[in-house]
Amino acid sequence: EETSTMEKLLHKCQIRNRLLRECLAEFLGVYVLILFGCGSVAQVTTSREKNGQYLSINLGFALGVTFGVFVSRGVSGAHLNPAVSLSLCVLGRHPWKKLPFFILFQVLGAFLAAGTVYLQYYDAIQAYGGGELTVAGPTATAGIFSTFPADYLSTWGGIADQVIGTAALLLCVLALGDRRNTPLPDALHPVLVGAAVLVIGISMGSNSGYAINPARDVGPRLFTYFVGWGADVFTAGNGWWWVPIVGPCVGALLGALIYELLVEVHHPPGPPDELHQETKLEMEPEVKT
Amino acid sequence: EETSTMEKLLHKCQIRNRLLRECLAEFLGVYVLILFGCGSVAQVTTSREKNGQYLSINLGFALGVTFGVFVSRGVSGAHLNPAVSLSLCVLGRHPWKKLPFFILFQVLGAFLAAGTVYLQYYDAIQAYGGGELTVAGPTATAGIFSTFPADYLSTWGGIADQVIGTAALLLCVLALGDRRNTPLPDALHPVLVGAAVLVIGISMGSNSGYAINPARDVGPRLFTYFVGWGADVFTAGNGWWWVPIVGPCVGALLGALIYELLVEVHHPPGPPDELHQETKLEMEPEVKT
Amino acid sequence: EETSTMEKLLHKCQIRNRLLRECLAEFLGVYVLILFGCGSVAQVTTSREKNGQYLSINLGFALGVTFGVFVSRGVSGAHLNPAVSLSLCVLGRHPWKKLPFFILFQVLGAFLAAGTVYLQYYDAIQAYGGGELTVAGPTATAGIFSTFPADYLSTWGGIADQVIGTAALLLCVLALGDRRNTPLPDALHPVLVGAAVLVIGISMGSNSGYAINPARDVGPRLFTYFVGWGADVFTAGNGWWWVPIVGPCVGALLGALIYELLVEVHHPPGPPDELHQETKLEMEPEVKT
Amino acid sequence: EETSTMEKLLHKCQIRNRLLRECLAEFLGVYVLILFGCGSVAQVTTSREKNGQYLSINLGFALGVTFGVFVSRGVSGAHLNPAVSLSLCVLGRHPWKKLPFFILFQVLGAFLAAGTVYLQYYDAIQAYGGGELTVAGPTATAGIFSTFPADYLSTWGGIADQVIGTAALLLCVLALGDRRNTPLPDALHPVLVGAAVLVIGISMGSNSGYAINPARDVGPRLFTYFVGWGADVFTAGNGWWWVPIVGPCVGALLGALIYELLVEVHHPPGPPDELHQETKLEMEPEVKT
Repeated sequence: EETSTMEKLLHKCQIRNRLLRECLAEFLGVYVLILFGCGSVAQVTTSREKNGQYLSINLGFALGVTFGVFVSRGVSGAHLNPAVSLSLCVLGRHPWKKLPFFILFQVLGAFLAAGTVYLQYYDAIQAYGGGELTVAGPTATAGIFSTFPADYLSTWGGIADQVIGTAALLLCVLALGDRRNTPLPDALHPVLVGAAVLVIGISMGSNSGYAINPARDVGPRLFTYFVGWGADVFTAGNGWWWVPIVGPCVGALLGALIYELLVEVHHPPGPPDELHQETKLEMEPEVKT
Repeated sequence: EETSTMEKLLHKCQIRNRLLRECLAEFLGVYVLILFGCGSVAQVTTSREKNGQYLSINLGFALGVTFGVFVSRGVSGAHLNPAVSLSLCVLGRHPWKKLPFFILFQVLGAFLAAGTVYLQYYDAIQAYGGGELTVAGPTATAGIFSTFPADYLSTWGGIADQVIGTAALLLCVLALGDRRNTPLPDALHPVLVGAAVLVIGISMGSNSGYAINPARDVGPRLFTYFVGWGADVFTAGNGWWWVPIVGPCVGALLGALIYELLVEVHHPPGPPDELHQETKLEMEPEVKT
Repeated sequence: EETSTMEKLLHKCQIRNRLLRECLAEFLGVYVLILFGCGSVAQVTTSREKNGQYLSINLGFALGVTFGVFVSRGVSGAHLNPAVSLSLCVLGRHPWKKLPFFILFQVLGAFLAAGTVYLQYYDAIQAYGGGELTVAGPTATAGIFSTFPADYLSTWGGIADQVIGTAALLLCVLALGDRRNTPLPDALHPVLVGAAVLVIGISMGSNSGYAINPARDVGPRLFTYFVGWGADVFTAGNGWWWVPIVGPCVGALLGALIYELLVEVHHPPGPPDELHQETKLEMEPEVKT
Repeated sequence: EETSTMEKLLHKCQIRNRLLRECLAEFLGVYVLILFGCGSVAQVTTSREKNGQYLSINLGFALGVTFGVFVSRGVSGAHLNPAVSLSLCVLGRHPWKKLPFFILFQVLGAFLAAGTVYLQYYDAIQAYGGGELTVAGPTATAGIFSTFPADYLSTWGGIADQVIGTAALLLCVLALGDRRNTPLPDALHPVLVGAAVLVIGISMGSNSGYAINPARDVGPRLFTYFVGWGADVFTAGNGWWWVPIVGPCVGALLGALIYELLVEVHHPPGPPDELHQETKLEMEPEVKT
């Protein structure tokens, strides 16, 4: 029978090592995120804003995160971001020994997704750039893959930008995961993490393209370095490349601390559901019969 | 009494054959998808982007899919796409013998929906095209119904575009349906499949209008062929018409394989809900009391 | 104590007549729909598309419907549209004797909401129109309140437009309410009805502004007639005013029939939840373990 | 072990005073709201609408509210708005003695968030304004932080605008919280309150920027006053600053009264879930078996 043939074939490929399964999930999650995210920048850039504008890029990364979380969260918890993994390790919610593996596969996913976007938009990038792969100038295309600062941005301004942006991300992500605040059904979690990335893109994207994720930025940057954009991708923006690596790590820790110290540590003891019930009843005295 | 009269009349039309019921549901699902999808292109085209832009076309197809799924999923499972039906057959999740019937009714739904869009926008299309129905040129209207490649796109680039786009679709659709990853309530499923189509349109629409569905493309193309646009709809774009048929079938299988091999086959045995519980607890040790 | 004083005062106003309660809910529901819907047109018109574009009008009516449903559905079922009420009567799901009362209060809600929009945008409308209230011309403002056809639209084209648009609405609304297709949690219902109105606006708004609701159109039209736009609101568009009254009634019945005859009457007998369970299992054989 | 070290450190900071915890939650909630909301205005303004348009500002405030509610609602009930707190006190659903503390921390959160937006957009604001911080003129930047009326708006028009806008907000918020109308799962509540703010911004933002919240407006206004925009932020718009304080308080009470008198007080007695069940059954007689 057809069914069982295919199922048997697939079953032979089963991996039982948990860390490897988690790494594959992180790989695929970041791959999906970058495939949709950088794809939306490619569409806006090469169509000269005919087939999308800045808002569609915001939606591309937001829904990229949503589906990146959907493909991975049941397996790896869907970090998809080294700065998130780091914060969870610091908070004691993820084992330190897994951190380097997670980061490696996250960067790898971003690298390969950049390659896929390049493949899909190869003709478009050639036509738009007149056959040249440039980092600056009127037909620059490196910005499809990794972030570069606005002309007006100082290095300190860029660091502030990445720290604040990633702190905002962690604030939202920790609030969404705090079952003593508002408990979420599983299926809404990926959507709302995507919504957090959407609003960050809408309100904090202007300075430098809201990387807020070292893997999202350095993976595609390495791809462009190897494939033909050259060393300019590292020297441009006064050597910008390290800011979206260091800034997010600092910002993630800051955001996590703020949420913990202003909200989470103060929850009274007891199981979360009872607590929540109590709060709800007080807020709605009209239901008391 | 009024009620029972109408109910009795309707009841007399009841069909008990399951395959026919499923085919009618697939027909109506694709009809709704194309009615809203191609309708949104008609609105943007004939209003010269006054009443909508590319993003509204993306939303039109996304919500078209959402409501197409809502009208059909309880009956037929809402494939709405021959490439999806084919992949489910290959994965052993749908009987091969139903495949030709599903495809036939999917194409029929797209054909009739194209006719309805033509009826609703008849005056607008006449006014916009100056009474001419053309496939290329400044007032071309064939693109309202079926897809055509951008000027810069090579045939191989077009094939890559359709393969990657449909692989991304299946990746998302299989992740949404994988109850051992993130289990979804029924009502969110149509919304999230629509969201997958939205992000594909936002990030992969520029090259050739993201058909990623043979029925969506060939049904309306046949309609335009018969009604007055003529043989140009098949010869245009260097004979583009077969790419959105073959590409999606290849891409759907590729995307299904990727999700299976990177995530789904590695889920440990046991009932899905227990598995999920386990994963959830580990991810959130702070709830341990 | 403060609480009880206010609660006692409010309690004295309690109405126990069920029909009157339902009519007040329909009134408030349509009021909210038009307040947000026509408000969004006022914003786009008087700001000359600086503070919104056609998509924001689509969102205004969609979310207007969503919140109109939220304020009324627990009481009256949230028809908010005479064509919907009529169809439910024909299908035997609503008593005919309530129909005239529902319609009266629906129109009244739309009339008063138009008045509120006029009050809120009084200065803006005066500034935009140079003190003139006109139905046609470069600074016409009647279109803020009721719909008018595009220049190219014939009367038969307009009828087809309203019939198809309202048929699409009922198709979606009946599918969303069909618990044997995809059962919805209560809270998602208002959101998804709003989404149906969004996609209709995105794909069927260009010809004549998608009234698809007699109360939505005639209530504000009467308001503009009385307040200063004069008889032109009835004569404009070759006497357009009756089309968004008659077209939606015909279209609603047509859409209801299509959904009933293609999907709903064919559901096998038995309680809906069991049926659904069965379908679900078949669609996902991989969970059988 | 790493985990317990961090957890122990954080645990030492636990605050047990309930009012203080609630005030911190209100502080952080408004902080998040303004950080995203005013950030989106900064992005649109300093990028000269290249990186966003009016709709992205609407989305910025809407999602700002959504995440502001997510970070605070389990602790304080997420008022985030002095006019909302006041209305709940008048309705007897919140203790009067907490009101001044809530308001103080709400304003403080808005003040500090304005400071954070200024820090993040410091370089951009300097570049856009040529080093000048102005309230009016072509490169004015005060509007990033607080609201100012359109040129055409009279003071009475402004009052009407703020009263109607905040009445609409309370109407929606009370309907969403009315468990005898449509009961909401906890997780959808923040999303739908955000949607209410979205539609208000889309339909009522044109006159004066839809403050509809005294803290949202006066906190950032004070920040701009102290930091360099000077007394103009209070004198501009014919002394506009008090309107977004007084108007919302009046409007919130009006909106609350309208919803109470038209819907909520008329619910028949009995537990909400039974009531709802009854209504639902009547609306869907086809499910009676």
